[in-house]
Parts: sequence; C-alpha cells; structure tokens
Amino acid sequence: MDVPLRNDTFVRACLRQPTDYTPVWLMRQAGRYLAEYRETRAKAGSFMGLATNPAFATEVTLQPLERYPLDAAILFSDILTVPDAMGLGLSFALGEGPRFAQPVRDEADVARLAVPDMDKLRYVFDAVASIRRALETTEADGRRVARVPLIGFSGSPWTLACYMVEGSGSDDYRLVKSMLYGRPDLMHRILAINADAVALYLNLQIEAGAQAVMVFDSWGGVLADGAFQTFSLAYTRRVLRQLRREHAGRRVPHIVFTKGGGPWLEEIAAPVDGVGPDVVGLDWTVNLGAARRRVDDGVALQGNLDPAVLFAPAAAIRAEVERALESFGPSERADGRHGGHVFNLGHGISQHTPPDAVATLVEHVHGHSRRLRRRG
Amino acid sequence: MDVPLRNDTFVRACLRQPTDYTPVWLMRQAGRYLAEYRETRAKAGSFMGLATNPAFATEVTLQPLERYPLDAAILFSDILTVPDAMGLGLSFALGEGPRFAQPVRDEADVARLAVPDMDKLRYVFDAVASIRRALETTEADGRRVARVPLIGFSGSPWTLACYMVEGSGSDDYRLVKSMLYGRPDLMHRILAINADAVALYLNLQIEAGAQAVMVFDSWGGVLADGAFQTFSLAYTRRVLRQLRREHAGRRVPHIVFTKGGGPWLEEIAAPVDGVGPDVVGLDWTVNLGAARRRVDDGVALQGNLDPAVLFAPAAAIRAEVERALESFGPSERADGRHGGHVFNLGHGISQHTPPDAVATLVEHVHGHSRRLRRRG
Repeated sequence: MDVPLRNDTFVRACLRQPTDYTPVWLMRQAGRYLAEYRETRAKAGSFMGLATNPAFATEVTLQPLERYPLDAAILFSDILTVPDAMGLGLSFALGEGPRFAQPVRDEADVARLAVPDMDKLRYVFDAVASIRRALETTEADGRRVARVPLIGFSGSPWTLACYMVEGSGSDDYRLVKSMLYGRPDLMHRILAINADAVALYLNLQIEAGAQAVMVFDSWGGVLADGAFQTFSLAYTRRVLRQLRREHAGRRVPHIVFTKGGGPWLEEIAAPVDGVGPDVVGLDWTVNLGAARRRVDDGVALQGNLDPAVLFAPAAAIRAEVERALESFGPSERADGRHGGHVFNLGHGISQHTPPDAVATLVEHVHGHSRRLRRRG
Repeated sequence: MDVPLRNDTFVRACLRQPTDYTPVWLMRQAGRYLAEYRETRAKAGSFMGLATNPAFATEVTLQPLERYPLDAAILFSDILTVPDAMGLGLSFALGEGPRFAQPVRDEADVARLAVPDMDKLRYVFDAVASIRRALETTEADGRRVARVPLIGFSGSPWTLACYMVEGSGSDDYRLVKSMLYGRPDLMHRILAINADAVALYLNLQIEAGAQAVMVFDSWGGVLADGAFQTFSLAYTRRVLRQLRREHAGRRVPHIVFTKGGGPWLEEIAAPVDGVGPDVVGLDWTVNLGAARRRVDDGVALQGNLDPAVLFAPAAAIRAEVERALESFGPSERADGRHGGHVFNLGHGISQHTPPDAVATLVEHVHGHSRRLRRRG
C-alpha cells in the first residue's frame, strides 16, 4: 500500500482544493544550475547515461529537494525517451540539443513506426520506483510518509513529432511543417502512434508510482491557429482519454503545458466528452488573473514567472513573485468554489540561474501566499 | 508634387476603406528566396554593402514586384540601422545573424548613448527617394503614376534594445532581461533614446517618400505580461506619438507588428490620447476572425499565414489562403463600417521558399478575395 504524503499541497492545488499556501516546483529543477547536478552528470558521462541509470536519475531528482522546500519532485528524464524507444537513436551532442540518428522523413519511415515495446523504457519506470522509495521518510511517531509527490512526464505527440521529423531542434520547423501541410495523412499517422505510445508510457509511470503526470507540448506554440487544434491539441486529448485518473485509491492529476499556448487556453482547458486536463501550464506571456477568468476555475493553473526574473536581485524576484500571486488572487471564490494555482516558471529554469535566487523564490512564494491567505 | 498611386489598395485597406480585393505584400519579400536577390547581394559583397547602397537597395526592393503583382513595396534595409548609426558597429557574419561590436552592457555604455546624427542614415533616405523614383511609371495617357506605395520601417525601441544589449540574437535574452529586471532605470533610458531616434528616423523616411511606416517589434513576444506593456508597448507608443500622420496631403498609415503579441492585441491596438496604430500585424498563432472581433475593427489587421505554408503544394497554399480570407470575413460590416485586412505572412518569408509558391499565394489572395466580395 502507498505511504501517505506528508506534503500534499501540490496535489490539492492541482485538484482545486483549499491549501495553506501556494505550492511551488520548477520545470527542470534538477539541472545544470546546480553544482551537484553537474558532478553527477560528469560521473554518468552523458545526459542519456544519466537519464537511463535509475540510481543517477534518483540522485539528481532529489538534489533540488535537499536545497529548497519544493512541493513536488519531478522525474529526471527527457521528453524524447519514447521516440528513442521507437529506434530513432537519440543522442545529445555536447552544447547542442537532442538529435535523432534516424529521423522520420518519408512514407517508408512513417510506415516503420509503431508503439514501442515498453520494456525498452523500463529504466524510466525503474527510476520512478526508485525515486518514490528515496522520497520516503519516517516521521517522529514512526509512520512512513512520502515527503512530496513525484511528477512523471512525457513530450506531447506533436512535440515528439517535431523532433522525430526534424531530427533535432529547429528554428523554422520547415521539415515537419512541410509534412503537416503537404502530407497531412503521414503526420496524422505519426501523431496517432505517438499519442498511443505516450498514453501507455505515462500509465506505466503512474503504475510505477508517479503521483501526477505532465504532458510537455513544448512546440505547440509554433503552430498556426487551426493547425494547433488539429495536429497538437487533438492528440494531447487522445493521450488524456487513455490516461489513468486514479492509482492506489488516489487521484492522479493530469497537467498539460503548451509553451506559447496562451491564444488557445480555453480550448486546451475545455473537457471534451468529460476528459480534459486538471491543470494547464502557462508561459510568462499570459496574465495569470486574466487566464483564470478565461477558464473560470474549470482547471488549475501552473506557472508562470519568466525564468529570467531569477537573474535579478532578490528584491526584484520578490516583487515579481508577489505580482504573480496577487494576479491569480485568492483561491477561494465568492461563490465558494476554489481555483488552484501551482507556482512555477513559464519555462525550464536556465542553467545560468544563481542557486540563491531559487531559494529566494521558493521562500517568498510560500511566505507571501501564506500572508495573502491570512489577509483574505 | 507627389504623383498619384495607380494601385492604392494597400493604403485603403490600412485606413479601413473599401477595396476591390484584399491587398497583399510579404515581409522580407525582397530576399534570399529570389535568385536575382542573391545575384545582387553577391555583387554588393555583404548584407550591409547591399543595404547602404541606394542603387542596390532600389534594385532588390523592385525585384519581387517584377515577379508578382504585390500591392506594396517595402524598403530594403535592416531593422538595426539606428543602433548602427549610434556607433555600435553592426555587422552580419556569414550564416549568422546581426552582431554589434560594441554592445551596451553597463551604466557607462548607457550614458554614452544618444539619438544619432540622422546624416549617418542618409543612405536610407536616399534609398527611399530612389525607390520612389523607380516605382514611377507612365500611363498610356501620359500621366505619371506610382505603381504601388512604398513602406518604410524600423525596429521597435525594445527590439533594438535586445540586440544592443545582447550584442546579437539570443535564445534566452538573459543579458537584456537581467538589465530589465535588475536595472530598470538603465533599460528605460535606452528605450527612451531608441524611441526618439526611431521616431526621427521614420519621419525622415516619410519625408523622403515612404507612404506607410511599420514598426517591427520582433522580440516583444519574449517579454512577460506586464514587462511587455512597460518596456515594449509604452515605447512603441512614444514612437507613434511623434510620427507624422500625413505627408504631401496624404495619410501615412502606421503599422505595428509584435511577433508573439497576440496576448496583448487589444492593448496594442488601443489608441492612447488619440494616438494608436492604423494597422496591427499578427503572427499565425492568432485567429484572424477572433482578432477582428477583439479589436472591433478599430484598426486594420495585417497577416497572418504561417510562412511554412509556402513549402506545401499549391492546393494546400490555396486552401490556407481561403481559410485566412474567410476567417477575416467581409470588410463591410452590418453597421456600414469597414474593417481592413492586408494579407501577409505572420513572419518574414523563408529563404527556402520556392518562388512559384509566392506566385500561387499572391494570385489566390487576389482572386479569392475578389470572388468573396462579389459573393458578399
């Protein structure tokens, strides 16, 4: 049986339940801005060496939690593990982004694609189980508890397709968009396979112990209006439809983050046939208060500080934290319903971030949100 | 005295007056996708060699008009000529973007900045005058006319500041955002100087013959909500407040394009103390019909096809053109007022674009919009 959570603030905020303060975690919180991460990475030899070794993945996942009172851990992994398991050959060249040795460019490449054997991703499920064990601790009264919940994740079907077709990151997404506009049949086939693979993958993460799951649609925002709905959102929904909503008797929140997805917030948030995300992630271009009104607290919101704020002096960081918290406003509404806010950055934390800035941020999110609740 | 325009469809659409069809031009329409451009560029030796020579600038500005029945010409130049005239030393390394030899990084650098002597930008005003002469032609009845209007332009104060502080393009805008959040006083000083310089520069382009002017806020969309209004929009407005609204007895439309500015469309479009843009440019993430409702035809809209559509077969290009035109809808409203739509891409045309695709696009914008007007 699952041990209970000592700190369930994150899960409660995801489910729009009252909390004592606003929970906070940071995308890429286990990362290069931490010296201890860089040490572990050096031991592992490469990024994939790190991600595919459950002991290393556990070590780096826990590192930011040792430094900061974060309200959630997130699996250390990459968004591109699924196409790697499809046999496309993922690698990370030093100082560059991810690269696939066998990109998907034509009809024959697409015909060869299939939902991969999930055994090839066992290292991920093993890491999830290992991290869950590492997060357990014993209370003074002898009870076993989990310090914070663990978030699992995957890239979205569209975002995976971008990398699979381009073979790497891209400035203009010329190849994948050429296929989208020129051979939409091939694109739909890739996306359907990706969606079914991602759903299977996330369900296995949930079974291994992930207490929330997040779909990163990092490149949804490069699509045109119309194309976004057809080629990104429809397949994110296909994932959500297949996801487990509960595990071990507890709700598992589903988070969807589309970078640049502000224009489509209502559509991303809306349930279709009763299935929609619990939480929608927002980047920093979106005003949190306006976003909350747009979704009318039908979902919780996650975000949305510009990661560049962490390059500023502490006073400026605190001012921006206050602006975000006050923009969202009190979680309880006049009609007695609750909204939910999970504080985060609007994108992954930069490798150039001073670690002290993160301490300032986390401390002030907790402190200021507690003060606001007392004031309200 | 100015010669009259043979084709004033673009200016009429900018001013929300009835037109027989939807006018079209393309951002970076004079560019590397054209073999004749590449030839002239080779003769000029470098990008700045091309831009600073009025004869070459005239030649390449006219090239796309010889191929396609475009409804406007746009000055061939760069958005960064103003900081170059400030003495920052602009260059374009082969295969890379722009680079400044003397970036603006600290208080002393900022203290040295000033509105540049506009004589250093004489090559731009000379190019404008030269292009205007080259656009003149004689009708069968002997009258001198201008084939199409000429658009002048500049980078926005914020976009110039990004390059001035970063020294080049950037993935994360770390340096300029560090200054924005850490030393907002320095950032405001740069932006005030930039705004006054850009206004002076655009007014001199208008006096030299530019019949519309466009402010490219190419990097406004990287700012957080709140920061955008304070550090980008406020200074674009400072430019607009100083711009000539008429020249030679004719209205000179003012166009503002913020890439990624969809979240702030209403604020960008809104006049402040009677001063606002005539036209707002949109990128492809925005739904044109929804954007039109958001601004209630208080401004004309320019855009917004994804440039990647031009990599698709002709049938797909035509389908996307129809979607955009029909999304905007009939320019005349039920209440008798008019909206205005200037067809364009949502960003500059890619160097990889097949020239035939542009012919398909322009022909279909004209043809389909004429058919829609007859149907309406």
